[in-house]
Amino acid sequence: MPSSNTPFGARLAEAMAAKGPLCVGIDPHPGLLAAWGLADSVQGLRTFSQTVLEAVAPLAAAIKPQVALYERHGSAGLAALEELLAASVQAQVLTIADAKRGDIGSTMAGYADAWLRDGSSLAADSVTLSPYLGFESLRPALDLAASNGRGVFVLALTSNPEGASVQHVGGSESVAKRIVQAAALENQRYAQESLGSVGLVVGATVGTALIDLGIDLAAVHGPILAPGLGTQGATGADMRATFGPAYPAVLATSSRGILAAGPELAALRAATEQTLLGL
Amino acid sequence: MPSSNTPFGARLAEAMAAKGPLCVGIDPHPGLLAAWGLADSVQGLRTFSQTVLEAVAPLAAAIKPQVALYERHGSAGLAALEELLAASVQAQVLTIADAKRGDIGSTMAGYADAWLRDGSSLAADSVTLSPYLGFESLRPALDLAASNGRGVFVLALTSNPEGASVQHVGGSESVAKRIVQAAALENQRYAQESLGSVGLVVGATVGTALIDLGIDLAAVHGPILAPGLGTQGATGADMRATFGPAYPAVLATSSRGILAAGPELAALRAATEQTLLGL
Repeated sequence: MPSSNTPFGARLAEAMAAKGPLCVGIDPHPGLLAAWGLADSVQGLRTFSQTVLEAVAPLAAAIKPQVALYERHGSAGLAALEELLAASVQAQVLTIADAKRGDIGSTMAGYADAWLRDGSSLAADSVTLSPYLGFESLRPALDLAASNGRGVFVLALTSNPEGASVQHVGGSESVAKRIVQAAALENQRYAQESLGSVGLVVGATVGTALIDLGIDLAAVHGPILAPGLGTQGATGADMRATFGPAYPAVLATSSRGILAAGPELAALRAATEQTLLGL
Repeated sequence: MPSSNTPFGARLAEAMAAKGPLCVGIDPHPGLLAAWGLADSVQGLRTFSQTVLEAVAPLAAAIKPQVALYERHGSAGLAALEELLAASVQAQVLTIADAKRGDIGSTMAGYADAWLRDGSSLAADSVTLSPYLGFESLRPALDLAASNGRGVFVLALTSNPEGASVQHVGGSESVAKRIVQAAALENQRYAQESLGSVGLVVGATVGTALIDLGIDLAAVHGPILAPGLGTQGATGADMRATFGPAYPAVLATSSRGILAAGPELAALRAATEQTLLGL
């Protein structure tokens, strides 16, 4: 993907306004491949990826390939992901590489290079990052993204029950709250844009955790990637209740809820449209 | 790599006893490739990897390729890592894929598949994991590793200054302490072995943080991967002071301190032997 003069957040805000606030996850789980009559192989990944892209690119603001499910087929699986990312540029849909990478220093710069550098075969419009080593350890990715119109989504607060053992720790100054505050500070450099390019991952089914932890997502001025729509249990109404004033920045993500309708294009499109109606 | 009937921790303990407690990082940084007269290309990665492996396999208990630095060359870079991992089996040195992966549910199972499954092209003896989503979110990797003689190293306490903003949070029940306690509990299933297969990553230069946070590493009964030897500033004496009674389980890691001596095999070996003498 060529670099863009328009920051990622602004491009995403435009896509959300035009198409609706939906991101479709491309999750080639072994079980889903089997359900679609595809082999659990690199060719299966390829066919699956092309089909979902063709079906949802006109409808979704973004697609989110799940890197783990390509990586489990090794370097050949990653090559299938590279093909999907290249095809997504042609299909004019924004990409979020769901990689959850995180490291420090020149190693973190290596991950930034892989996912956010012009000319990298794995470059996406944005990438998800994991901040166990501290939000600031992600600096090489934050800066590279800012320099070439790309973005990041940093894990903040998730709805898996075991997430609380890290993210909720710290009481009124919880780990999750610190990540959210750091993202808000970082988005000050995008103050002139409609939406910042430093997003967060916050589960659609976190319930009252945002209130309980005193987290103000509306102050983040960045996109909120919210997995959990559909199969995982959240409805559009649930998400409005959970996110409150931050809802306009929420990019709801559905994977299996839509993918289970495949492999026919028409059925995938109908499921996507149905999902959009609920947002 | 074929699966082993002997658990990873026991195999590592044996290697540490025979060769000494040293892990050599294989970090093909762009600057290091240039210093070795190699191109920043897949062929450069290949030559670098083969050279380090040939030099250090007889001397080091383990090697630790830094996945980010292969990934920045995309799928072709990962293919070079696959070649290194295959060659390491032949060279009879244990491998730690430094990938810092972490996710939940079936996605985490995808990462476990990639790095720990028999027959996967990226399978290593062990892999590093990141627990921002909770220690228990790593369950698919813990269980797959236990089933086939592989291991994991979970990020616990690092020495980068920004790490404290996550890892130190929680006072006497800090995030890092919870991770350490969870690993200790997990290693109960390896109680009959000389060393458990659930390791931790703890920086060699964390100073007094272990004491300050009340963390008891000696109770973990798993290997402690400690980056920070050499270039990053820790000596063997520092590490004995930092780790105290846990020192026998510490696998010290040196990357640039040894790699800077290359590309000549003899010089790399001399640097490795010199490093071992200090442990």
